Parts: sequence; C-alpha cells; structure tokens
Amino acid sequence: MDQRKAAAEGGPGLSTGFLGLGAMGYPMAAHLARQGQASGGAAYVWNRTAEKAERHARQYGSLAASLAEAAQVDVLFTCLPTSAEVSELIGRLRPHLRPGTFWVDCTSGHPEAAQRQRAELAELGVSFLDAPVSGGTGGAEAGTLTVMLGGPEEEVEAVRPALAFGGKVVRVGETGAGFAVKAVNNVLLAANLWAAGEGLSVLARRGVNLGAALEVINASSGRSNASENLIGQRVLTREFPLTFALGLLAKDADIALDVALSAKASVPVLAQVAALYRAAAHSVGAEHDHSAALQLLERMNAQEIT
Amino acid sequence: MDQRKAAAEGGPGLSTGFLGLGAMGYPMAAHLARQGQASGGAAYVWNRTAEKAERHARQYGSLAASLAEAAQVDVLFTCLPTSAEVSELIGRLRPHLRPGTFWVDCTSGHPEAAQRQRAELAELGVSFLDAPVSGGTGGAEAGTLTVMLGGPEEEVEAVRPALAFGGKVVRVGETGAGFAVKAVNNVLLAANLWAAGEGLSVLARRGVNLGAALEVINASSGRSNASENLIGQRVLTREFPLTFALGLLAKDADIALDVALSAKASVPVLAQVAALYRAAAHSVGAEHDHSAALQLLERMNAQEIT
Amino acid sequence: MDQRKAAAEGGPGLSTGFLGLGAMGYPMAAHLARQGQASGGAAYVWNRTAEKAERHARQYGSLAASLAEAAQVDVLFTCLPTSAEVSELIGRLRPHLRPGTFWVDCTSGHPEAAQRQRAELAELGVSFLDAPVSGGTGGAEAGTLTVMLGGPEEEVEAVRPALAFGGKVVRVGETGAGFAVKAVNNVLLAANLWAAGEGLSVLARRGVNLGAALEVINASSGRSNASENLIGQRVLTREFPLTFALGLLAKDADIALDVALSAKASVPVLAQVAALYRAAAHSVGAEHDHSAALQLLERMNAQEIT
Amino acid sequence: MDQRKAAAEGGPGLSTGFLGLGAMGYPMAAHLARQGQASGGAAYVWNRTAEKAERHARQYGSLAASLAEAAQVDVLFTCLPTSAEVSELIGRLRPHLRPGTFWVDCTSGHPEAAQRQRAELAELGVSFLDAPVSGGTGGAEAGTLTVMLGGPEEEVEAVRPALAFGGKVVRVGETGAGFAVKAVNNVLLAANLWAAGEGLSVLARRGVNLGAALEVINASSGRSNASENLIGQRVLTREFPLTFALGLLAKDADIALDVALSAKASVPVLAQVAALYRAAAHSVGAEHDHSAALQLLERMNAQEIT
Repeated sequence: MDQRKAAAEGGPGLSTGFLGLGAMGYPMAAHLARQGQASGGAAYVWNRTAEKAERHARQYGSLAASLAEAAQVDVLFTCLPTSAEVSELIGRLRPHLRPGTFWVDCTSGHPEAAQRQRAELAELGVSFLDAPVSGGTGGAEAGTLTVMLGGPEEEVEAVRPALAFGGKVVRVGETGAGFAVKAVNNVLLAANLWAAGEGLSVLARRGVNLGAALEVINASSGRSNASENLIGQRVLTREFPLTFALGLLAKDADIALDVALSAKASVPVLAQVAALYRAAAHSVGAEHDHSAALQLLERMNAQEIT
Repeated sequence: MDQRKAAAEGGPGLSTGFLGLGAMGYPMAAHLARQGQASGGAAYVWNRTAEKAERHARQYGSLAASLAEAAQVDVLFTCLPTSAEVSELIGRLRPHLRPGTFWVDCTSGHPEAAQRQRAELAELGVSFLDAPVSGGTGGAEAGTLTVMLGGPEEEVEAVRPALAFGGKVVRVGETGAGFAVKAVNNVLLAANLWAAGEGLSVLARRGVNLGAALEVINASSGRSNASENLIGQRVLTREFPLTFALGLLAKDADIALDVALSAKASVPVLAQVAALYRAAAHSVGAEHDHSAALQLLERMNAQEIT
Repeated sequence: MDQRKAAAEGGPGLSTGFLGLGAMGYPMAAHLARQGQASGGAAYVWNRTAEKAERHARQYGSLAASLAEAAQVDVLFTCLPTSAEVSELIGRLRPHLRPGTFWVDCTSGHPEAAQRQRAELAELGVSFLDAPVSGGTGGAEAGTLTVMLGGPEEEVEAVRPALAFGGKVVRVGETGAGFAVKAVNNVLLAANLWAAGEGLSVLARRGVNLGAALEVINASSGRSNASENLIGQRVLTREFPLTFALGLLAKDADIALDVALSAKASVPVLAQVAALYRAAAHSVGAEHDHSAALQLLERMNAQEIT
Repeated sequence: MDQRKAAAEGGPGLSTGFLGLGAMGYPMAAHLARQGQASGGAAYVWNRTAEKAERHARQYGSLAASLAEAAQVDVLFTCLPTSAEVSELIGRLRPHLRPGTFWVDCTSGHPEAAQRQRAELAELGVSFLDAPVSGGTGGAEAGTLTVMLGGPEEEVEAVRPALAFGGKVVRVGETGAGFAVKAVNNVLLAANLWAAGEGLSVLARRGVNLGAALEVINASSGRSNASENLIGQRVLTREFPLTFALGLLAKDADIALDVALSAKASVPVLAQVAALYRAAAHSVGAEHDHSAALQLLERMNAQEIT
C-alpha cells in the first residue's frame, strides 16, 4: 500500500516527520519508517541536503519530502546541532504547521529555548516537547536510546508510542527539563573524564604504569563511564577517534552552567570544568573528539597520558 | 596438627601475621587462616585490643599472638588507619623482626611514608611492600579484593601466593605506587560524587524530578560508580549510612594532592575537590559517612538533593 | 528665576531628570541640581516613593516631578538595582519620551539588557548609554565618581558635560561595554576579597597573628583594595557593616560570568569565585554586607578570620 | 680601623655574615657593610662564586670571607633560592658554627624546613629565625624592605638592630610563621594577577578597549597591586620583563598550598591558582617572568591580553 496515499487518506497509523538526518537522526528515522510500515502510518523524512533523504527513503522505505510536506504530520521530530537551528525551522514552517501536531525535539537544546519555542508553537496549536536522547549512534541503530522528555504528562504519554527509537523513555519534568537533564549528564561526562585525566597525569608524572592503574581504578570505587569507556580506548591509545566533537561537549557544558546561573545554583566544580573545556576547544580545537580535551591537560603537565 | 608447633618447626606452608583487625582487616585475616590450615602454615593475628584477636582465633582458627610473636613470620600484613600507625609499629617491632620477612602494608597510606618505611626496614633485612586494597567489607569477606602493589617485581611475585584475600592483584609500580594509585582512585570517587551532587542540585533548583533524572543519567554517558551506587542509596534516601568516614576520604584526597605537589602535577579540579571535602569534614563532621559531604553542597545551594 | 518655567521655555542650560534616589542616586542627583542652578537648566528628580524626591527638592533645589515630567528632558539618568527595573521604567515611559533625549543608565546592569534597551529606545529617537559608576557613597557625595561609559563616541561626548557627579569619566567601548567593565571590576573585588580570606584562614589555622600578617601583606606584593580596605575594617573587626549587599555583589559576579559565557571566554577562577559568592548568598544571607561572604569560608575552615 | 681585626678582638659593633649575594642579597649586604663601618662591627660576605664577594668588598667595604670565616659571627644571614640550599649550608657549616650566633634566613623558605633547621641548629647553640623579605630589588637598594620574622619574641628583638636593610620589621609568630606569611603573600599576588588576567580576557573577547578598562578598574574597587603595577607595565606592553621568575612564584604558591594541607585549611581558590601556575610553569616556561603566566590564559582563550 502506498504510504503517502494512506497518510493523505488518514490511514490507521500515526504519520511522522523527521527533520535532520545526521549521525543520530539517520538511524533514528529508520525506526520510524519500520514502525510506519507495520502500522500503516507514513514516515516522512527531510534533510538540508535532499540527497540524504532520498537515500534514506531507498534504504528504509521512508518518504523523502519537502520541508512543508514533512511537517504536516501527527508527530514531527527534529534532531539538529543546537536550538538555534530548531528556531530557524520553526520560522520557516510557521505557515505550514497544522494544529494538533506534536513537535518532538531530540536536539541537545537549551531549556530556555524550549520554553520560548513551546510558547511560539502553542499559538499555532502545535505542542512542543523537548526530548533529547542518549546512547550514541550504537543506541540509535539498535533502537535502544534513552529519551528524556520535558513537557506536560498527558502530552508525553500521547507521543510515547511514536518513539520507536527509544529503549528507556523517561519524563523528567516540565518543558525544558529534558534539555536540562541532558546538559547535566553531559557536563558530568566532561567532569568525570577530566578528573580521570588529572588523576592519571599525577600517576604518569610519578612513573606509575597507567595501564595497570586504569585496570585497578576500573575495578574500584573511582570508576566512571569515562574511565571505563573513554580513557582506555581513546586516550591511552592516542587515537582520539572523532565521534562526538569537543566543541559540542563544550557547548553542552555551557548550557549546564547557564541553567545553573538561571537557577541560582552554586556549582563551583562544574563551573571550573566548563571553563576548562572551553579552553580546550580554543587551544586544542573544537573539531576534535571530546576526549582530546585531555590534550590541554597534557600541555599543562608537560606529560602525556599514556 | 598444631599450627603453632608446625610453624615453629618450619612447616611446609608460609607463616603469616596480620596486625590490625578492623572492619577490613578482620575478614581479610580470615582468608589467611583458611589458607594456612590448607597448606600447613601458621596464621598469627594481633590487634591493639587483644580480645578481638582471641575472637578471631576462635572463629577462624587463627593464632592470637603477641605483637613480637606475630611479627616473626614469612609475610607480615598491616591494615591500619594511616601510615602514622604503621610507623609506630615499625618502631615497636624493630628488635623483633627477622631478616627475610616481607611486610605487606594494606593501609591506605602515603607514598612518601612507604619510601621511608621501606628504607628503614631494609636495614633489618625486611622487605616492605605497599599493598592497599579496594572492594569494601563485602570484597574482604568474599576474598575478592583488588590489591594494588608497589615494589620490585620479584618481591611482588614472592608475596602474591600469600594474598589469599585478593581477587585482582596488580603490581602498579615501584614502592609507593600502590598508595599513589589508591589515593588517586579515592579522590576520583570524591570528584565524581561531588560533581553528581552539583548536577542534581541544579536540577533540583529547577524543579526536575531527581529520581527520574538519576535513572536517566545512570543509563547515559555521565554515569559513575558514585552516581550508580551512592547517590540513589545514600543521598536521595537521606540515610547517609556510615561505612567509610568522610574524614578518611578527605585524608585520601589530601594524600592525592600531596602526591601531585611532589610530582609537580597540575590538577586544578582535584585540588578544588580536595579543598571542598576538607571543608565538608570541618563543617558537616569528619565522623559522618563520606556521602554526607554533599550536605555542605546542600547548604551552599539552600537546596536538599532529594 | 523659576527653573521649571525656564526649562519649559527652553532655558540656556541642559534639563536633566534623575530616576531612583537610592544610596547612590540621592547624592548624585544633588550635583545635577547644583549644576542646573549654575547654568539655568532644570534638574527634575523622581523616586518610587515621592516623599524622597520632595526631600531632595527641599534640600538641593531640584524639582520633584512626576515620572512623565521628569522624563521629558535633555538627559535622563537612571540608577536602579538591576536592569530589570530599568526595563520596567522604559515600558512605563514609552508614551512620554521625546526624541533627542539621552538616557544615561548608571545602574550596574547587564550588557545584553543594554543592547536590547538601546534598540528599543532608538525606535523612539532616544539614545541609551550605559554608564555605571564606582566610588561608593563617598565618591557620590564628593562628585568624584568613576563613570565607565558604553556607546558611540559622539553620544558619549554629548553627555559628558552633564555628568556633574563624575571625577574620572571614561568611554570603554560600544553599548554594553560600560556594564561589562563594571561587572568585571566587581568580580575582581569578589575574587581578591575571597583569596585574601583564604590566605588569612591558612595563617589563622597555623596560629599566626592576623593583624601582623595583614600589615605585612598590605606592605607587600599580595595587597589589593580588598586587603587594604575591607579585611582590616570589616572582617578582623567582626563588624561587617552593611554598605553593599552580598546579594548584589553575587549578582554582579553572575553578570560577569554570563558575559564570559556569551563571549566564550574561559575564566576558571572567576567562575569558581562567582559560584562561591552565590553559595555565600544562600548560606550566609544575601542581605548582609558583601564582606560577610567570608563567613562561609569560616565555616568551611572551622576557623574565624580574626 | 681594620674591621677584621676589630671583629677578632670583639669590637663594639655586631659582627655579621651574609651568605648568598644574589639579586636581593647583594644590595641587602651593602646595608650591613655600611652599618658595620658606622658601628665598628665586621660585615663578612660569602658567595658560591667568590668573585662576587670580592666585588662586593671593593664596592661597599665588606669583608670577602671563606664560608667558615663568614659564619663565625654574631648574626649570620642567608638569602638563597629555596630551603634546600639553606639545609645544605647548615650541613657544611656544622663544624664551624659557634654557640650564641643568630642565623637569620631571608630565603622564601618552607615553614616545615624552618622548624627542622631551628631544631638542628639549636643543638649547636645557634638560634635560627625565618625572616623573608618583600619589596623587590628596589626596596633592597633603598633599605626599605618589609621583613616578616618568625621565632621567639626575645630573639626577634635581639636581631632587630642588625636588620639594616629593613624598613618595616614585623614579628608575625613562632618559627615558620615568617615563611608562611611570605608564601601566603605571594600566592595572593598570583591569585590577584590571574584573576585580573581573566577579567581582561573576557573584556578583550567582547571588544572592550583594555587600556581604558584597566584605567577604570585601577580607579575602582577591583584594583590590586597586580592590576596597578603588573598588568599595565608587563602584560599590555607584551614585555614580560624578567625580574621574578615564574618558576619561583609557582614554588611559593606550592609552599602556601602545602602549609594549607598541613593546617587542614580549605582553600579552593588558592588551590586552583597554584595548579594553574604550575601548569603555566610547565607550558610557558619556568624561566620567564611571573607575569608570563598569563600567556597560558591567552592560549586558553585564543585571545591576547592587549
């Protein structure tokens, strides 16, 4: 059955649109296409470069669409670099959106942007929910992403069945809470990674075997996701493979600090960590992998972590 | 067969002595007693309060001994609060030690003390190894402790068979390296715990549900042993059960900082963290559980983490 | 000659309005009144509580006016707690402002607010300049305040003759630059004060005589305005007299940090200091003198600075 | 009259020895020579390179002496890079020292070294006093140095008349207190300088004119000796002239932190500052002027402070 026709006729399944087929969005939208095929709902996809949407359609049976077409759906997803790109799309889609649509933003966005965007879309009868995800490209492909949602409970429940890419789906609070939790998670990643780097720098300068030290720490109370999954694979190997850019992690850390400022929270350690990642982005290069932040620390200690 | 007699006659198994039957030492020494019984080696125990050694003997078949008697063995273990207590015992045992003994110190001690103590004992023909452990009382009872050893490779190999309480036994470097790795592990625990506390404080002040936020973080990249095993069980519950005192963690953080100073390592985040735990020990109380450090943070934010 | 009549008839001197007769504004407006009398220009004053404006008129010969009346002048001054109060007045005065007026804001405001306010007022033909001041109530009374101005050079020159309360008047850059410099000055005050407090805490815990130590430091390279003028008079005396509230200094430190975030500047020490003052405002009390921030440090050290 | 002979015969004036004719010691010893000539007391000088002592003798009329000869005096001064060099001289002079001598150490030394050195010298009947100085080479030449003394009151009073190079002479506490106050003064210098650098970095990235901003800050509450005397002359000019090495200031900051650790003082800001100066010494170069620490900050911000 032709999904596009079924959707136009109001087929039984939910119609979805997905804007932004990047490293995360591309595999996430594949799950929407599969769910659409199973339930008789259309799954539109759009990307800034149309060729990528067409490839997605050929590969997964989604429907490559114009921006306006992809937006006239039951649930519209966005997955973009920052809230600024989402705001720009809202502006372009203003004449095309239809009342009743849910806009589910999977971007690692800013809580204050979420509140403005929700208010702006509410005037058009569209419900905005912030829904950032965690789990990396592996989780996106497996459809096991953790989704942290911010917004009214009944709206979260309404979109829950549509989140075909999610493993753990948790409502964490009102609008913006999803983005806030994501920013906090990422600044904790940044803090744990930097702290582990400092600890190993001390040991390296003292002549301790870092492989042995890391093995011990990862079997002890000081372990973290950063020490278990980043230090050994990315830093000690000197590979620093690019999967998540330093500039984006520095941006997330700054969002967390901005939320802290708005909430008048005192976070001396996270504030220091955010400053150090900004410094690393300036001095090592924002385009490198986030693990390369420790190269600033290596210069500060005249000591490689290896 | 009478172990004491077997030992005196030079039985087939190694003879061991264990000084300091505290929360960790008591179950650790039980494994030595079992190994002694299996191999025909005597396992002496001594404690500042003799009654505890006698109870251990009744419970596990170890040999309650005088300090001098317990020290005239193949492998002598110590497990005491700080390096200062170890130094005091070295002074008292000076006339009684015999050449060829290995002194294996499981205290969370100071690397510089290890070097002094090794030099002092070497004059008596005794080999000092630093061998702190990780895994808590649970690991001590199960005999699965991680042991991080500092000292010459051949000496580490010589004592390895005697470490009946160990699961993972790793030589991390020369004398003092074991204490250095332990101090670094513990300051990382302190850093990860404090950072998680700051992150949750921001979310709490913003009205986010902390249980949901923690669930999400523990399924995401910001997780650590502290967020997975301490925040939920000890902080959100408001229980702060005493298993590892704040004063001892503050001491370990200070050892790590002292090692950094000696090594001329630049550790701006760990230096701040160590200062905050010292502050927590002063203002919350050194005798509380280490998780209660976050009560200082709660005062700084006028916000409970709950 | 009746100033009100002279002004209405377009007397020779500039007409001025002053909104906000607080601890700083009251003496600042007095200099405008004197200058008006000398030059034949009217000096209107307005305050939220009218009685204060009337007292000012009786005391200095200014003209107590309605808000609308006080705003229809050549140069309109504001001196309020934060930029939020200034924005509120702009809203109320929108129908009353006349093209050609200069709005000179002496509040310790936010650079981003300045840009919004300048744009908003430009639509009405009114020129907004940020012009925060430094020097305390003493400088305000003596007419020797330092004024740091942000805005186009020709506009700064146009209002310069009207700044009767100023000693040193410096244009530091474009719109918002004045507020940015003020925020940076104040966070440096905060940093220098806290650092001095930490240094003296170490010495106090070591048993050093703090009066002697401060005397030496103030004759040496570690001295600062904070060590010379605040520690001795406010902290060692235990008086902490209220002249500048802790909550306002914490607000200024947060503005500085916010400017740093916008400018992507890495300021690890100032970020930490801002967090500590926020903590002090929460735990000691925002309403106390800014020097009472060190009472948080005293709790962190279990040691009075005395 | 021949001073050497007068001294041997027990002339009326005090005999003095000065060990270490560096940038500070050379002009300091000149004041002792002048005072000796006026009072009839011998002023011996010694330096590692004897030629320098001979030049001093020709220039000021002091007595170039062997180490042993220079030490057999009423008051023996040392002014060396660190406490380690002082300890080495104590070892060499052990057979030559005579009871009743005061050993006044003007080095920027370590308080714990002072306590060991005092104890060691007390066995020989020699009184050790820590007496670091402040005021730079200018103060040394003018004889207006600030001297901060640690030791028993009566001993401080006994040597006070001999301190010919001092302007302000203050006893700050028991043995080690002088060194502690000096270390605290210097870490405050480091903190105030770094904070000013951060503040100006924010303004530079925002496009503010730094010369104007510095002029304003130096007329306001955020000013410090660092902002008034170092930023303008050494940083904005890009000259960073070498008068006090970065490596020595980093060493002093570490002494302050070490004193804090021993005293269990919580100094989160100074701990971070000490770490940043260590990092600057590693990455910019310990041999540059201390003001060049801000070159690390410039790399962290991709922004010159100019």
